[in-house]
Amino acid sequence: MENQTILIKNAQILGGTVNNGSVLIENDKIIEINDKIDFSHIDKVIDAENKILMPGMVNTHTHLSMSLLRGLADDLPLDTWLNEHIWPMEAHLNGDYCYAGALLACVEMIKSGTTTFNDMYFFMDYVARAVDESGLRGILSHGMIDLGDEEKRKAEFKESKRLIEKCHDSAEGRITVAFGPHSPYTCSKELLKGVRKEANKYGNHIHIHVAETEYEVQQVMGAHGKRPFEYLDEIGLLGEDVLAAHAVHLSPAEIEIVKKRGVKLSHNPASNMKLASGVSPVQEMLKKGICVSLGTDGAASNNNLDMLEEMKLAALLQKIHNMDPTYLTAQQTFEMTTINGAHALGMKTDIGTIEVGKKADLILLDTKAPHLTPFRHPLSHLVYSARGSDVNTTICNGNILMENREVLSIPEAQIIEMAQNAAGEMLSKN
Amino acid sequence: MENQTILIKNAQILGGTVNNGSVLIENDKIIEINDKIDFSHIDKVIDAENKILMPGMVNTHTHLSMSLLRGLADDLPLDTWLNEHIWPMEAHLNGDYCYAGALLACVEMIKSGTTTFNDMYFFMDYVARAVDESGLRGILSHGMIDLGDEEKRKAEFKESKRLIEKCHDSAEGRITVAFGPHSPYTCSKELLKGVRKEANKYGNHIHIHVAETEYEVQQVMGAHGKRPFEYLDEIGLLGEDVLAAHAVHLSPAEIEIVKKRGVKLSHNPASNMKLASGVSPVQEMLKKGICVSLGTDGAASNNNLDMLEEMKLAALLQKIHNMDPTYLTAQQTFEMTTINGAHALGMKTDIGTIEVGKKADLILLDTKAPHLTPFRHPLSHLVYSARGSDVNTTICNGNILMENREVLSIPEAQIIEMAQNAAGEMLSKN
Repeated sequence: MENQTILIKNAQILGGTVNNGSVLIENDKIIEINDKIDFSHIDKVIDAENKILMPGMVNTHTHLSMSLLRGLADDLPLDTWLNEHIWPMEAHLNGDYCYAGALLACVEMIKSGTTTFNDMYFFMDYVARAVDESGLRGILSHGMIDLGDEEKRKAEFKESKRLIEKCHDSAEGRITVAFGPHSPYTCSKELLKGVRKEANKYGNHIHIHVAETEYEVQQVMGAHGKRPFEYLDEIGLLGEDVLAAHAVHLSPAEIEIVKKRGVKLSHNPASNMKLASGVSPVQEMLKKGICVSLGTDGAASNNNLDMLEEMKLAALLQKIHNMDPTYLTAQQTFEMTTINGAHALGMKTDIGTIEVGKKADLILLDTKAPHLTPFRHPLSHLVYSARGSDVNTTICNGNILMENREVLSIPEAQIIEMAQNAAGEMLSKN
Repeated sequence: MENQTILIKNAQILGGTVNNGSVLIENDKIIEINDKIDFSHIDKVIDAENKILMPGMVNTHTHLSMSLLRGLADDLPLDTWLNEHIWPMEAHLNGDYCYAGALLACVEMIKSGTTTFNDMYFFMDYVARAVDESGLRGILSHGMIDLGDEEKRKAEFKESKRLIEKCHDSAEGRITVAFGPHSPYTCSKELLKGVRKEANKYGNHIHIHVAETEYEVQQVMGAHGKRPFEYLDEIGLLGEDVLAAHAVHLSPAEIEIVKKRGVKLSHNPASNMKLASGVSPVQEMLKKGICVSLGTDGAASNNNLDMLEEMKLAALLQKIHNMDPTYLTAQQTFEMTTINGAHALGMKTDIGTIEVGKKADLILLDTKAPHLTPFRHPLSHLVYSARGSDVNTTICNGNILMENREVLSIPEAQIIEMAQNAAGEMLSKN
């Protein structure tokens, strides 16, 4: 196969080794960044004048297929929302629905500049098919829940291993598989210990919800006499390969445990605010050197997958909650969304910055827009003024997935219709 | 002049007397809403299939020309931000800069679905010229600050009256003028009492910042021995014609005063969060029947004028601050942004809902987008998933200001360039 080359010229770069210059892509990688790139023999030249070039954003906690449940029910107490709306609908899930929902989420992510995500849900081989087609990069995990039932536990391990065998390191390496024990209150100790053992054996990462609500903390305290991170540490689950989503309610001792074990965190401000779960001590944890990244959670509790909106929410929430406008600066928020995201998913050497040798996961944002004028501090505009629709071009693994807002890898209009129909069918079964 | 008619057909309507139907506009007014409108003799037909039709949004507190200061400085303590960045730049303001900044803000508002706004700043006759050209509806006030200086006070009244004479009820009635005493801590008692007297005499509304920060409360307490709303009530300023912006720090007694006097409030969540000012007791005040509307504040502290984003922030902030996901529902938030906004500005009979006899201030939003799929509860999508860029068409006073995202009333690209240059010039004078 011939080498495929793309040159992005005249770029104003965020998250790169230089602030201005040209970036040369060969196949899936960035191979040169400077101003003196020879323009001959290049397959495709993109003029990035009046655009910001930055790393594709990394959404470290989501449930793609839940996009089918977007706007199903809002403004409700968590238990009513789950028991009366979300779970009854999820009972009708099947592989085709999850495929449709995942494709819909992939289109949304491509159109708002996310190139890598960390997903946990069901029928994940169907999700993998959608991700493969979309051209995005993702870590997929089957959500494991046993509620203490041994048969269920066996089935969950079987399904997780099936997913690893079928999908791990597939789609030119864009898809990897993690273990997805749902949480310390829905998984038995046996399941969690088993996950650690299998993760060590297979080398796969672990993706788990931890300390999302005060209710969860009380449940774990009641069952195990310890707070969630203390309990997970005691049974040996925690490690550098663990991505803990939400991490809202942590005691000072738990923050120390997270730091000591090198656990990575995914902060989900929109979901935490919408469900009134609480406010994660993000600034404090970043200050201690803990890797805190950013995630949207599923579209049912957000209700979109727009990481630019999530950045603004993250920064504003830390400032108001701590009554300090210097908390979570634009620079810190940007890092959470790029390099911290990469680090959180064990991909620090491959993505998260624009550097020679890294994967060509890049996005371009239009800056000639009234809400981004005057254009003076790109980072400020990115975090506080921009929105997903400002993303003009999305490149993942060296492939152009969207150019000038047109999605190239998958058929947007067809997917919207397919998802609308799937959601209608699910609702009719209720 | 011949009558100009526009028919919007196949609309899914929010904030109207019916949920579906056709809306007929003649000149500046809605004259019919039903399914049996005779399609002949209509100048322009807009097919609203797959679109939401709703009232143009009402931004009840902003400083248009501050769009030139967007992204100038962020993540700073309020006094550093004001003293070292905002005020030094404002010292270089002139009419031309304020015109450029106001035009920029008008383009941004047209493109994100705001048709009416309440503005306070300087060089307001230049702002009026921009608003006139843009086709938007606005209440303009000269920001009055005397800091106890009698000469300054006289000048402020002179300027306010000049603005009234020159601009009140201009631009086919789209522009009115209010008195804009800046705040109880920057205006003397004499100025505030004078404003009440003049407002009664001229019949103009009053636009004032009140209780934005705890520091302000302490200042007013120190100077007058009362909290801001208590003090303003004591000197007789409060009334149904007063729009108090921010209203963050209110004692229970002050909430009762606001209710009793019929004062209207503008809640500004993005600005209050970004500057860490505090959280307004919005839900509590709405419950008491107080008219709370929504505003973006200026772009320097937001940093955009996107009312769709502001709605999501408002709802999410009330939920997390009160730790109750049922707080500020999508319906309540929508009302804050439409009918409450109209009521707050004394325009309840003219705008804020889609009703026969009201002004034709309407917007259409595209719903065929991945982040708005599946399309089931329009209100939920509007508040929790949509963004300003989903607005497709903006109509104000019966004129189409934007159609299919193309701004028709003013030249977008030229304005972006003019604003960029004006901001550059101002910065170079620093």
